[in-house]
Formats: sequence, structure tokens, C-alpha cells
Amino acid sequence: MIIILKDNATKEDADFILNKIEGLNLKSLYMPGVERTVIGAIGDERVLAQLNLEANPCVEEVKTILSKYKLVGREIHHHDSVVKIGNTEVGGDQFHILSGPCAIESLELALESARIVSQAGAHSFRGGIYKPRTSPYSFQGLGDSGLEILRAVKEKYNTPIVSEIIDINDLEKMAKNVDALQIGARNMQNYVLLEAVGKSKIPIFLKRGMSATIEEFLLAAEYIYNSGNENIILCERGIRTFETATRNTLDLNAVAYIKQKSHLPVMVDPSHGTGLRELVIPLSKAALAVGADGLMIETHPNPVLALSDGRQSLNGSQFEKLMNELKILAPHFGKKI
Amino acid sequence: MIIILKDNATKEDADFILNKIEGLNLKSLYMPGVERTVIGAIGDERVLAQLNLEANPCVEEVKTILSKYKLVGREIHHHDSVVKIGNTEVGGDQFHILSGPCAIESLELALESARIVSQAGAHSFRGGIYKPRTSPYSFQGLGDSGLEILRAVKEKYNTPIVSEIIDINDLEKMAKNVDALQIGARNMQNYVLLEAVGKSKIPIFLKRGMSATIEEFLLAAEYIYNSGNENIILCERGIRTFETATRNTLDLNAVAYIKQKSHLPVMVDPSHGTGLRELVIPLSKAALAVGADGLMIETHPNPVLALSDGRQSLNGSQFEKLMNELKILAPHFGKKI
Amino acid sequence: MIIILKDNATKEDADFILNKIEGLNLKSLYMPGVERTVIGAIGDERVLAQLNLEANPCVEEVKTILSKYKLVGREIHHHDSVVKIGNTEVGGDQFHILSGPCAIESLELALESARIVSQAGAHSFRGGIYKPRTSPYSFQGLGDSGLEILRAVKEKYNTPIVSEIIDINDLEKMAKNVDALQIGARNMQNYVLLEAVGKSKIPIFLKRGMSATIEEFLLAAEYIYNSGNENIILCERGIRTFETATRNTLDLNAVAYIKQKSHLPVMVDPSHGTGLRELVIPLSKAALAVGADGLMIETHPNPVLALSDGRQSLNGSQFEKLMNELKILAPHFGKKI
Amino acid sequence: MIIILKDNATKEDADFILNKIEGLNLKSLYMPGVERTVIGAIGDERVLAQLNLEANPCVEEVKTILSKYKLVGREIHHHDSVVKIGNTEVGGDQFHILSGPCAIESLELALESARIVSQAGAHSFRGGIYKPRTSPYSFQGLGDSGLEILRAVKEKYNTPIVSEIIDINDLEKMAKNVDALQIGARNMQNYVLLEAVGKSKIPIFLKRGMSATIEEFLLAAEYIYNSGNENIILCERGIRTFETATRNTLDLNAVAYIKQKSHLPVMVDPSHGTGLRELVIPLSKAALAVGADGLMIETHPNPVLALSDGRQSLNGSQFEKLMNELKILAPHFGKKI
Repeated sequence: MIIILKDNATKEDADFILNKIEGLNLKSLYMPGVERTVIGAIGDERVLAQLNLEANPCVEEVKTILSKYKLVGREIHHHDSVVKIGNTEVGGDQFHILSGPCAIESLELALESARIVSQAGAHSFRGGIYKPRTSPYSFQGLGDSGLEILRAVKEKYNTPIVSEIIDINDLEKMAKNVDALQIGARNMQNYVLLEAVGKSKIPIFLKRGMSATIEEFLLAAEYIYNSGNENIILCERGIRTFETATRNTLDLNAVAYIKQKSHLPVMVDPSHGTGLRELVIPLSKAALAVGADGLMIETHPNPVLALSDGRQSLNGSQFEKLMNELKILAPHFGKKI
Repeated sequence: MIIILKDNATKEDADFILNKIEGLNLKSLYMPGVERTVIGAIGDERVLAQLNLEANPCVEEVKTILSKYKLVGREIHHHDSVVKIGNTEVGGDQFHILSGPCAIESLELALESARIVSQAGAHSFRGGIYKPRTSPYSFQGLGDSGLEILRAVKEKYNTPIVSEIIDINDLEKMAKNVDALQIGARNMQNYVLLEAVGKSKIPIFLKRGMSATIEEFLLAAEYIYNSGNENIILCERGIRTFETATRNTLDLNAVAYIKQKSHLPVMVDPSHGTGLRELVIPLSKAALAVGADGLMIETHPNPVLALSDGRQSLNGSQFEKLMNELKILAPHFGKKI
Repeated sequence: MIIILKDNATKEDADFILNKIEGLNLKSLYMPGVERTVIGAIGDERVLAQLNLEANPCVEEVKTILSKYKLVGREIHHHDSVVKIGNTEVGGDQFHILSGPCAIESLELALESARIVSQAGAHSFRGGIYKPRTSPYSFQGLGDSGLEILRAVKEKYNTPIVSEIIDINDLEKMAKNVDALQIGARNMQNYVLLEAVGKSKIPIFLKRGMSATIEEFLLAAEYIYNSGNENIILCERGIRTFETATRNTLDLNAVAYIKQKSHLPVMVDPSHGTGLRELVIPLSKAALAVGADGLMIETHPNPVLALSDGRQSLNGSQFEKLMNELKILAPHFGKKI
Repeated sequence: MIIILKDNATKEDADFILNKIEGLNLKSLYMPGVERTVIGAIGDERVLAQLNLEANPCVEEVKTILSKYKLVGREIHHHDSVVKIGNTEVGGDQFHILSGPCAIESLELALESARIVSQAGAHSFRGGIYKPRTSPYSFQGLGDSGLEILRAVKEKYNTPIVSEIIDINDLEKMAKNVDALQIGARNMQNYVLLEAVGKSKIPIFLKRGMSATIEEFLLAAEYIYNSGNENIILCERGIRTFETATRNTLDLNAVAYIKQKSHLPVMVDPSHGTGLRELVIPLSKAALAVGADGLMIETHPNPVLALSDGRQSLNGSQFEKLMNELKILAPHFGKKI
């Protein structure tokens, strides 16, 4: 429910209403503006009805929030959110480039990858240390020992670090060592994990599930936001369809659609979204053109030797070429890199 | 790798090989048979090659396991597995009926549901207390307080209980109170959860992810088996397709296919698989006919009032009618109920 | 629109209304019953409103047809339709078996196939002579010369023949030589073809498009029915999904759903629906159990040598085994074979 | 099979080989180049083997064409094809804009639509007169009487016309009146229609089937090319997936993939590809960025009143805005408008 106060409403008027909302165990939002103060009330429709605010003399208008995603939708929060990863931004006019290998394989390779992506101008570095793999017999990541490597990368290249969390019991140690946590496609509806990271303030890089509808995707973000963490970056990474020529079908419709419905920044992962190195550059440009706020690109010093996802990883010179092209194109789409 | 010993091989010969396998940190399986002893070795192909067992004089034959799912496949384990939930069986010639409401809503409703399904002849009772819901504003289950209700149902109706686990930290308390744990569709690739339940011995009712391929489904079971828990029941519950007339598309192809490739019992959930009450009875019969080992059916004393999934739940008389029909049909498909 | 006349309404009353309907260029249906006469009027909603029949004293009730498929739906036509292929029936209590090779390859193979399926008890024979193939370089069928072979099969084994039509200009010559025309999955929305066969009275075996929704499937049948041909048999043959272990995903949900919504008989094609010979028998039983009215099974004397679809074809002894099992099971599902 | 001649090979040498190819009823291609002459031979692999050209002294190299699509693939034909619609081009550095209403509803609306799109700078005009509609009760197009309207539009605005063909018997009259024929998504595998238009030389605008794989799409083009018509423009128009927020999922992966594998120009239809007017502009830009050769955009003077597809049509000012943006962006992607 969106409650728009009259222009002469005072802070006390607002507090009165906020107390009433909280008194019914509803979630409240206080959004003072230049002209009007707007208050949000989120929760069970039947309880919302008990607020009976239409009669309050300082209330100008009461509107129902129609979409299922109340907090991440634009109905209550019109302007684009900007989320910070370390001291870099995602959203607004900043086009953010996050890059690195699929998995951290060794200190040496991690440093070499970080050198490549940093020199080419990426804003942040990614690399998995806990890998959710389809087969129990595939490389599962370095685990805890990878944390030290991520720390070493961060120190040497002064780059923010993003890495995937798969176990709520890893939250504390990861939050100490990385700048943003990725929730992978397979865990997009792992609500226990969503609520756990929602209770921290660390930025969350939330990837769309491989067969999640846009509504389910936004509701997953709503879980995190509703648990208290507003620092959410959405990431479209391709959906599962009948097509087999490409690994997934990158859904750029979803990016344009979400940008209209939600204030959260949306990045695109053309590496998983296509599964084919030679499609990463054209789809990266398309993501910029469609209105995305950034890219997640898999880069590896020697993709042929990568322990996972080598087929879709760029090497150093390919990544550099991509960055150079994007830097020229971005301003034509109202973005800077 | 499957190692078939010669018929004159001794227990000492087998132990020698088993030690060698374990010495390389590979997983070993010891399967003594009436005529021959068979030994399994599972792990990285390059390490398996180091075993060099062809030269061992007590070895008759060494075969590679071709499928990706080594332990749950039939290559190494030909015969159907039978899994027990409480003192009831799933698999072999037993057609198992698991029924109850989607969610435990209250003690009264739980007892009434249990009365209905027990009287009609169901073998076990199900009801969720931790519910993974798409929206954070939907009913999330009773949580821990539901455990007492499940215990009360179990005592009163002497029926085994199956309930869904969504958090590894709930494992201990749930294992004390229920007879089998469900892993839901959304968590089918939550490998942290799979490995956690794999370390217990409690039977696992593993539902197929809504867009999981058959191979991914069997590899999820492989995670559990490989962690040490052989008590796994697979459950086909419909996949996500373009069709919107039904909630999901129940994939009975998958049941027949899995019965050929895996020794694990396979149950079918026509309630989620169709989403429409009036399709539950015909699809239940089809599941029996295609070779499934049982059914998971949502039953509610008053489906119209159910807090979740009412549209697909049978009421008491519909469930009884279904049970009566299945009891007559089952013997024609080599099953008893 | 469904117009139910009063029990004292005369034939003249009905004719008056029928004339009025036809005068507005709407489609009329006259359905005299034992107790009441029912009249249907199909067409543009705005024109229907001009009928203004509520005021007519011999009219008991006027009801809108809610579903988009007016003529093939059960709202206006409650009872199951029975369609005849030659002198065999499809629908009602008859479970119809249509079998034969994917393509007619030669007279010899066609006769041998017909011998196999006839001896095992199939009711009709199928074989394609015009084959719509994905690649222009694949075997495209024998074309016109195949018609003579089909005639020879019909004479020798006294079996009705079903064969696919792909070109409206073939309609006349095919209608002379075969007993029913198949519209294949790729042509399910070839409305020119649907209307052309709709103007004949030859029975149509309409296969579901590989990504057609149930509604689109029934509307394709509506095109044929609306053009004047009521002899339509629907055939579920598997839909295209993300799953790659099987060629298609046989959608038995759709069979149960359509049986509730439409009066037309529904057959199932487990050969294309699975793409794997070893799944044909279990899925055939499931189709019987779910309420289908028959099966279309690909049978070939020597599947390994078949020019198309060999992987999914049964050989003679497999087909015979299937028939024997179905004959025993059918009565338990209210059907005879 | 690709046969590369030595640089001293004469026209007679080439003719000798071409005769040999044709003598075996294989399809031949003669491609003289500045440095080398290349000859293609297409057909059954076993017959190709009989050519035995490796031994011919004027042959430098013989290579097998690996892809299934021989003629439309780049293996034999490296450079981009450019197809002309009227005197406008599609392909190469020309970004082609084809626009107009879904259906021709009246002369007045057609002229008004043409005025809008012509003034804004579209290169060609589209409008359907034979409409393949899911329901037989929906507006089916004006039929033959629409041809005169299309002719009137062409004369008044001097614009090439593209319109959909659904019946092979309409080919002659349509070819006289329009500049290119559209094959719609539902007819993409109507091989009778593909072969019929393949025997003419009129440019074909071939839309991807709604669940056609990329390979099936290219093989549909191969049917047309193999029948003799090289003037083919491919059009990606969105595929059917589980997502329901948008009408289809526009598959820009496919555009980038096809541009690498095929020499044919590829256009994109963001109107059907999204189904939502407000997504047409961002997805149009994305199509340009990903490497497409043009756009097909639905424009209607008053979308709210359109008899079909109004929800996805731009009005005049929206189309003009899109054109203005595209004109500025195109040169950054190596294209002119």
C-alpha cells in the first residue's frame, strides 16, 4: 500500500502512521520527498485493510500496490537504485563490468586473470571457490582455501571481489573477504539462503534461475529486500529452452521488461547466456543497447585449459577488444564505463 | 569401474582390491553375489586408470561405467532397490501411496487429513511445515511448531511421516520426528542440502526440479548416494513447458526411462504434475501403468479452504475412490497396494 | 451460443430459429434430442447478439459458449463422438490400434509390415508416401507411386489405410485411395490445408503440433469441423521441451484434459512421443490408462534398416507382445480392442 | 562437397567437372573467383563419393561440407548475401526497415500506415491480406481484395511491398503484385509451400517457426535455395518458452549464431518477439547491436483499434522516434539506414 501524505503533513503525522503500520506487524517504508512524503506499508492484504488511512486528514491518497513484488517494483520506488560493489557503482549511468574465471583454480591463475581484466578496465573481479556442479565427480572448487586467493587478488589489484555463496554457514567468512555475494541460478529459489543474505548488508548479485519466470525472479529479489538488504543486482543469464545450438537462450526481453517494472540494476551474463565464446561480444553489445546496467563476462588466461566453462570464456585479448568496443559505444546509450 | 572377480576369488582377494581402491581415495563398493563377487570403484577416470587391475589374476573382467550416474545407475547395480519409509516399502512389487495436505495448517486439519488417507489405505502421510513459497508474502508453513503436529499424527494413526527439509540446520530435529525427508523441486540442485542429507541414513524423497533434465535429476540422486545414503526415492512431479492449460507437464516418459537406467524406486506426483484435481485420477492410473513404484497425492479435507494448492487437492471421497480403483488395477501391472 | 428449446417446441419453431441464424450468416447446428431440441449458433459475438432469442416464446434458455472451441467442445456436444476409419471405429468403448511403418519404402516392405500388424490385431494400417522431412536431402517418400502400394495393401489385408497429406492439390487422389488422412504435426496450423480437408468428409487424423498448446490444437480441429467435416480424430504425439533424453515429451496430461473438454476421440502416438523403442510399450499402457481412445504405433519388419524413424519402431514380435498385453488390460479401463 | 580448382584450371576443366556432377543428378554450383574457381556439389553422400575428383589433375582440394545446410551455410559461400526487395537492399552494410500494420484492414488505413512509415524512412511496407489465425472465428484478412489495396499503396508511396503467402495457389497473383513474399512462422515447415516459392525468383522473407531450432530454420531456407531461389531473408521473431510476461522470447543468440553460420541476411521482428509495444524500441536497438540486417516493425495509425496485434504495434510518433534513434546508432555498428 502506498500512502501519499498531503504537502502540509509533518514528521509527526508520518510517525503516527508509521507506528500504526508497525503496530500491525506490517513492514513500513518512509520516503520523504521534496514535495511530498510517501509511506509504504507491505504485508497481508487483510491486515492492510485494518489501517483505514483514507480517513486520516494528513493523507492525500492511498493506493494499492498491484504487482506481487512490492519492494523491488517501481510502483513504490520510481527511481533507479544504484548499488555499490566496493567503491564501484552498478546502476544509474554507470555500466559495470564484472569479469574473471568461472572457478578459482590456483593463486597463479587467479592473479593472471585479475591482471588481464583489471588492465582492460573491468570494475570488479569474480571467481568461484564453492562451485555447484551438476555431477558430484566434477571439480567442486577450492573451497575455503580459495578465500586467501581472493584476498590476495583484491590486495594486489585493488579490485572489488564477487564470489558465489552456496551454504548459509559460509556467510560470515565470505562477507569478511568479498565485496558482493553471488546467488547462482540453481539457488535462486533457495529461500533459506535468500533470507540469510537478506539479513546482511553485503551486496547480492542474484542470477536468474534457468527456468524462472521474470515474476519468480523479482520475487526472489523481494525475499532479500524484505529481509532487510536493499543492495541487490539482478543478472539475466539465459533461460532453458528447446534450442540446443546455444547453451541457454539469453532473454534480453526480460532485461527491458524488468527495467520498466523494477528499480534494481540489471546486469547480463552473455557467457552462460550463450555458452559460446564467439557469441559473447555481439550479445554484450546487445545487452548494452537493450538497457542493461552491466555485464558479467567469463575471462580465463587460457580457456582451453579451464577446469570449467572454458568453451564460453574469453581470453585476454578478446576481453580487451570487447572492452574497447564497449567504451566507445556506451555513451550512445547514456552510459559510461 | 566395475570389477568382476573370478569364481574362485576369495574374500582376501576382494579385500586386497578394495584396499587398493580406497588407497587411491576412490569410492569402493563391495557386492558379493552367489556366483561372482563384483567390486565397484568410483571416482576420477585418471585415478581409476592407475588401479591397473586387468593384470590381477583373480579379476575376470574390468568394465567402464558409461553413464554419468555411476551409483544410482543399473550398470553396477542391476536389481531394483527397495527403500523403506518407516515399516512400509517403496519399490519392488509394492506400489506405495503417500498422501496428505500440501501444508500442515493446524493440528485439527492434520489429524483429519491423516484419518482420511489412512482409512483409505495410504501407506504414509505427508505434510509440509517449512514451505518454500514463490512470494515472501505467502503462507510459509508453521515451522518448528509443526513438528509436534506431525508427531501427534504419527502416534494417532501409526503412519510413517514424510516432510520437506529446506535448511540443513533443521536436519537433526527433523530426522528425529519424521520417517523420510522430502527434497523439493526448487532444491533439487541445492548440493549443500543434498550432501547434508546424504550423510544421514534417513530415506530421501527427491523431487525432480521443474526444469531439470533426467540426467541432472539422476546426478542429484548421485550426490546423495555418493555421500553415503542409499535410501533414495525419486519423484517425477511435472516439468515446466510452454503449456499453460495444466500447471506442469507430467513427464511419464521420464518414469519409464529412469526405470530402465536406474535401480532406484520412482514415484509420481500427479497433483503438482497437473495442477488440476480432475486430472489426478487419470494420471495416477497412467503412472501405475507406465511402471512407477507409487504416488504422492495431495489430499485435503476441504480443498477449497486450503492455504496452498487447493486447486489440485483431492477431498476425502475422491481419494477413497482413487484408492479403490488403484487396488483393483495394481495386480495387472505386477504390483500390490 | 446454445439455444435450448421448450419441450413443446415444434420442428417449425426450430426451423424458424435456424433460418434466422443462417440469415445472419452464422453457422447453425440442429440437435434434436429425446426430451429437448438444442440449437447452436456459432460466429461473431456481435452478430450473435442480434439474434435476440431470449424473447422467443419457444426458447427455454440461451447460453453463451465460453470456450474458444465451440464445435469440438463439450459445451454444445456432451457425448463422445465416434469416428469410423473404413469400417472400424475410434472412440466410445473401442480402443483403436493404427500401425505400420513411418514411410512406405517398397511394395514388399509395405506388404510385410501390413501382414505383421494385421495378424497381431491392428485395426488399420498407416504409412507415409509424402514425407515432410526437416532436410531437403532426406528421403521424401515415394510420392504418387506409393498410392498403388497402399491400394495393394488394402486389398490384400482388407485393412483401412491412413496416410499423411501435405499438399491440398493431392486431396482428390488421396481421398480415392485411403480411408483417413493424417495432418502431421508440422501442418497443424496450415489453415489452408485444414480448410481444404474440412470440405471433404474423409476422416482426419490430426496430430498435435510439436509446440502447440492444447487450445491451439483444439482450434485447429475447430477449423476442420467448422469447414464441414466432423470426422476428426485428435492425436497427442509429444511436445517439444528442454528434455533431450527422449525425442519429445509425451503429454498425457493433454489427453486427460482434452477428454474432459472435447467430444472428439483422442489417440496417442508413443513412437514419436518418446522416440525410443523401449519406451513405446510402457507409454502405450499409460495412454490406455489415462483414457485415450487408441494408439498410433510405428512398426517395421526390420527397424534397423528403416529409412526414417527406425530408432522408435517396433519389430513384429515387439508389436505382437504389445497387442497381447493391451488386449488383456483394455477391459479394465472400459475399452475393447 | 567443395571442389577448389588449381589456379591454372580452365573454364573447360570446370565444365568437365560440372557435367560430371550433373550427370550423377547432383546439384552443382559454379563460383569463379579472382584467384581460384570453386565448384560445389550437393546431394547424397554416397553418390558424391562416386565423383572421385581427388585424382583430377586440375583439382587442388576437395572438402566435405560438414553442416546440414549446404547452400545457405558459409562453408561454400563465405561472403554475405545481399537480397533486394524492389530496389532496396537487405544485407551488407544496409540496415533495412520493413514496417506496416499486421493486417490490411481497409484502403484508408493502409494508405495512412504507409504514409507514416514512409515519411519516417522505412524502406518497405508490409501488411497481411491472408492471415493465418489461431481461431477460425478471428479476422482472416481481406483476401484477394487486399491485393488492390497493396497495389494502391505501392503506387502512391513508391514503396516495395511485402505480404504473407499461405496458399501455393496464390503464388502467381501475389508475385505480380508484391515485391517479396513472407512465409510465416506457422508455415516454416510447410515444405510444399517452401518448394513452390523456391521455384520462383521472388524474394522470400522467411520467419522462424515458433519452436523451430536454428538448424531447422536454416534447413527450411535450404529447401527454398535448393529449389532455385537464392533471394532469402531470414527473420527471427521470438520463440516459445515457459515465460508468459512477454508473448515470445526474442532469441538474439540465434541472430549472432546464424550470422556466423549462414551468408543470408537476418532481420528481427521485435513486435512479435516481445508482444509488448514498450519493449519494441529497446529490443530494436539490441537487434542492431547484435548484428542483424534489419527490422520488421508493426506500425498502425491507431493501435488500440487494430483488428489484430494492436498490443504490440507502434503508432506513428513512436515509429518515428525509433527511426530517428536508429539512424544515429546504425553507423556505430557498421550499418547505414
